[in-house]
Amino acid sequence: MTKQQLFEQISQKNSYLCVGLDTDIKKIPTHLLKEKDPIFEFNRQIIDATIDYTVAYKPNIAFYEALGAKGWESLQKTIEYIPKNCFTIADAKRGDIGNTSGLYARTFFDKSSSGLDFDSVTVAPYMGRDSVDPFLEFDDKWVILLALTSNAGSEDFQQLSIGDKFLFEQVILTSQKWADSERMMYVVGATKADKLLKIRELAPDNFLLVPGVGAQGGSLEEVSRYGMNKHCGLLVNSSRAIIYASSGEDFAQKAKIEAQKVQQEMSKYLAEYL
Amino acid sequence: MTKQQLFEQISQKNSYLCVGLDTDIKKIPTHLLKEKDPIFEFNRQIIDATIDYTVAYKPNIAFYEALGAKGWESLQKTIEYIPKNCFTIADAKRGDIGNTSGLYARTFFDKSSSGLDFDSVTVAPYMGRDSVDPFLEFDDKWVILLALTSNAGSEDFQQLSIGDKFLFEQVILTSQKWADSERMMYVVGATKADKLLKIRELAPDNFLLVPGVGAQGGSLEEVSRYGMNKHCGLLVNSSRAIIYASSGEDFAQKAKIEAQKVQQEMSKYLAEYL
Repeated sequence: MTKQQLFEQISQKNSYLCVGLDTDIKKIPTHLLKEKDPIFEFNRQIIDATIDYTVAYKPNIAFYEALGAKGWESLQKTIEYIPKNCFTIADAKRGDIGNTSGLYARTFFDKSSSGLDFDSVTVAPYMGRDSVDPFLEFDDKWVILLALTSNAGSEDFQQLSIGDKFLFEQVILTSQKWADSERMMYVVGATKADKLLKIRELAPDNFLLVPGVGAQGGSLEEVSRYGMNKHCGLLVNSSRAIIYASSGEDFAQKAKIEAQKVQQEMSKYLAEYL
Repeated sequence: MTKQQLFEQISQKNSYLCVGLDTDIKKIPTHLLKEKDPIFEFNRQIIDATIDYTVAYKPNIAFYEALGAKGWESLQKTIEYIPKNCFTIADAKRGDIGNTSGLYARTFFDKSSSGLDFDSVTVAPYMGRDSVDPFLEFDDKWVILLALTSNAGSEDFQQLSIGDKFLFEQVILTSQKWADSERMMYVVGATKADKLLKIRELAPDNFLLVPGVGAQGGSLEEVSRYGMNKHCGLLVNSSRAIIYASSGEDFAQKAKIEAQKVQQEMSKYLAEYL
């Protein structure tokens, strides 16, 4: 998917919501456990319920891998099921030496190899440029590079000072040379004005994938006010607050209500800040 | 596996060789392609051929993931096949926020969840302590934290200066507080004396997993001279030079010869530097 196509989706749906498919077999409604593939059945119903309010879906790969080959099959069915005009993110946080990153790229981008055909994959920056490059060799596929994450541990290294910059700022600055904003996004777990303004100085045109709004407590208003650019430039993720809105048989209806609520708030910010 | 048990293996086999099972369907001998599971069949024969000279096996997970659910099954069979007194490393370079890292830990450590039962997993440090902690909750399982990798991109961030230290040195220093040398190893792609001496100052007791010796050109002699501690403290990996020593029907015999050659060199260094 191109940047323009993504922006068209955002404009059509008046939404920059990404739904995180962090589907945990221990958390889904128990009535689904009698299904042949409960994980896929849960995802299918969540997708059907939220598709009108959502421009992207982001399965966190850990949830599928933890179930071995079976989980991998559920993931494959899920990705096939998501309509092609929705942006898909393999939240995998991969990264390895060049030839190995090439295999991870095949894993998530090359359907003929693994059965998966994501639009993008999250990549850890620690191993540097040659660990990221192989993901950029696929047309119309995206790297979403970890910059600032939303967990407490982001203070351990990401927020250490390299000269006059934090490490996460240096990651953005350095990687700006690796690809343009048509191929590279950043994970930015920031909801505070000062950090967002600084990030927008370093990466004015890139999309930012923002976790940590909703269940994790960030403010959608601040993210939108300080993070939005002229192509929106934001994908804001919500996982638990939507997919686990109810643990009963009405889980999909409740997910729909929650997704719609977020979309309505987003449509307001699009009118105000775009 | 405990540190003591690992050291016993090293002493018995007079070896600290780790064989990297980077098994690529495009590189294995063509006569294996008629097998039901060519990847597993290749691994099985490599393991049989090298087991007397090898204390650890390290499948790089990318090679298996790239084949989707089928690859995952080959991986599972491989891990089941490796004798329990050999140390096993899931070279996965994972790392995510706490609850998600918990799922990755289940993936590689909890057989009842994923079918896999590795002794250790490689973890990327970028997301900090709470991304590593969940892997440390399993008894007798190990985290092998990326410190300094052997690729060109290691210069982009790992070798940036944080005060008077390189980032990779800070990673070692900070993570020394997270676990002791019974649970934590480091990936150290260093073959030069100055770097190894500095690393041994920061992490005197930890095992170091050293890639990049052999096909990638590092010197086993220097690594052993400057990296060895009183429990050996080294696992030196070789992948391609051993597993692809021949592309013909004699691949396993040739792998055996190469593994034995490395083991003989190692036995000399153990006598000299331990």
